[in-house]
Amino acid sequence: MHGAGDVRVGQAADPTIQAPTDAIVRTVRACVCGSDLHPYHSMPASEHGQSMGHELIGVVEETGSAVTSVRPGDFVVVPFAYSDNTCPICRDGFQTACPHGGFYATPDVPGLQAEYARIPQADGTLVVVPDVDPATADDALLASLLTLSDVYLTGYHAAFMGKVAPGKTVTVVGDGAVGLSAVLAARQLGAERIVLMGRHTDRTDLGRAFGATDVVAARGAEGVQEVLDLTGGEGAHVVLEAVGHMPAYEQSYGVVRAGGVISRVGVPQYEDAPVGFGSLFGKNVTLTGGPAPVRAYLEDAIGQVLRGEIDPGRVFDRVLPLDEAAEGYRAMDAREALKVMLRP
Amino acid sequence: MHGAGDVRVGQAADPTIQAPTDAIVRTVRACVCGSDLHPYHSMPASEHGQSMGHELIGVVEETGSAVTSVRPGDFVVVPFAYSDNTCPICRDGFQTACPHGGFYATPDVPGLQAEYARIPQADGTLVVVPDVDPATADDALLASLLTLSDVYLTGYHAAFMGKVAPGKTVTVVGDGAVGLSAVLAARQLGAERIVLMGRHTDRTDLGRAFGATDVVAARGAEGVQEVLDLTGGEGAHVVLEAVGHMPAYEQSYGVVRAGGVISRVGVPQYEDAPVGFGSLFGKNVTLTGGPAPVRAYLEDAIGQVLRGEIDPGRVFDRVLPLDEAAEGYRAMDAREALKVMLRP
Repeated sequence: MHGAGDVRVGQAADPTIQAPTDAIVRTVRACVCGSDLHPYHSMPASEHGQSMGHELIGVVEETGSAVTSVRPGDFVVVPFAYSDNTCPICRDGFQTACPHGGFYATPDVPGLQAEYARIPQADGTLVVVPDVDPATADDALLASLLTLSDVYLTGYHAAFMGKVAPGKTVTVVGDGAVGLSAVLAARQLGAERIVLMGRHTDRTDLGRAFGATDVVAARGAEGVQEVLDLTGGEGAHVVLEAVGHMPAYEQSYGVVRAGGVISRVGVPQYEDAPVGFGSLFGKNVTLTGGPAPVRAYLEDAIGQVLRGEIDPGRVFDRVLPLDEAAEGYRAMDAREALKVMLRP
Repeated sequence: MHGAGDVRVGQAADPTIQAPTDAIVRTVRACVCGSDLHPYHSMPASEHGQSMGHELIGVVEETGSAVTSVRPGDFVVVPFAYSDNTCPICRDGFQTACPHGGFYATPDVPGLQAEYARIPQADGTLVVVPDVDPATADDALLASLLTLSDVYLTGYHAAFMGKVAPGKTVTVVGDGAVGLSAVLAARQLGAERIVLMGRHTDRTDLGRAFGATDVVAARGAEGVQEVLDLTGGEGAHVVLEAVGHMPAYEQSYGVVRAGGVISRVGVPQYEDAPVGFGSLFGKNVTLTGGPAPVRAYLEDAIGQVLRGEIDPGRVFDRVLPLDEAAEGYRAMDAREALKVMLRP
């Protein structure tokens, strides 16, 4: 990405092992994330540009000398953050805050919208998908596995941190791919009622297929009132906020029940927000969430996908070759596509 | 209170039953709250003034025709908010958000720094202290029972919402009466380590007696660094924020561990605060807390006090007659007294 609206596909040198804990992974599928659209709107023009992408499934090509848990030929899911998975913070289940971990598409580690990727901390990061040959696997299976790199497990993290459970009423704010994933995850965790706030019918239809029991298209004060009306005036036990903009935050504290939880996974495009007596404190509302520690949930989720219990890959509605990544950004930004998969 | 720094004791008409669910309670002990100091600093001058106080133990004098759970002569603890204790929000344990409840010292219901008080929703609000005659009970017992009206159970609420448990490292921000109560509550809930951030040695000494294992006097970035140093660089699992001012909030997110919890019970003197990637979100920090639903915890806590398991009344270090309430405010504001008890 060379600036707002300016995505170019270029030729980079193949990545190489730089530390004994690295692995090189050959891309099977990558994709564009809703969070990639934030710089797509705001990045200052740059001649050098910035590599992009943080979602990947692929095949291990090469491993550093210290890597023991994966070997060349393994088909793996790459979580959107790397981590050692052994430190106290990782053992707590917060791998996105691992002091030895980090993120892709940064000055240190190139992005994953590429044919090959260098994965630091390979032992702590990569998880093998057993008994699947990506060369012959069907597209729907690959799509669902790819969502475990970020989008589905980000929705799952929202629901997990929000303590969604049987009997709970959940409101999901946002009908993007993360919001729809949050609906599917809330259903997995047994939510009794799931109100999806979104205004794009094709998306909310998928939300209903994923388990939403109600859809509210209105936004702002009107949308808040509709959710309150649907919940006997009390609001939702749990609100899953999957947007990251202030109006979504404001809707969240408007619809949450006293003593309830707002769980955010939309990357906040603000630093300060209301948390005082008039928003969170007076109602004893809990605010939680953050970058999803995908790694913590990955083995279980791979099993669910392989057994056919969940089909989160349905959020992909367009597939493009990596060469056409720029068109993928444009289509998602224009809301012509919900989520774009990229293939080599 | 007639304005900032202007507290006057006046003669008001005795309260009377206004609804069949009311009770009239004769004061045994009342007190001044740290939160009463906020208007003491900022209230605009007013000729009419505002009655004050929300903490009380007393004897039921009279009950409305619908009241069945208390009768004249009962010795009761009065929670700082009244509630019906039967609605879905109360059943969830968030009585301070009861839609039929409310607060004292408001236009509707006079404050409790008085000889007699009208208590709305008496059945849902008042809890009887069994087998204690307040006329002959010793002062230490009365002091501890009085803390159950607000201050101790506010500290307890912080610890409860923060999920303090065995093995957890807890940091308490603030050495006022609520902060010290939070230390005692954290110890009750089994915290392994309790770091008290406070700079008044007489107060932090009581904090040590209540269970603090470490005291950090430094504030701001220096205080944050000291807590990080004490916790192997990782920070505290749980931070109990018992002040309500922005510097305490900033200290809280500075010392909290990734994936940890900040539980606030200091009434926020701000509405907006940092919650974005650089403060809460990036570390997956949970923010919780609010006005303590004292009613939810009252029966258990009365039992603990009566059995001598906790002695939260040690936060009172001065007793004044109600007539000298103004001196009580002055002494607390000047930090000459930690917490002032008022007696008829």
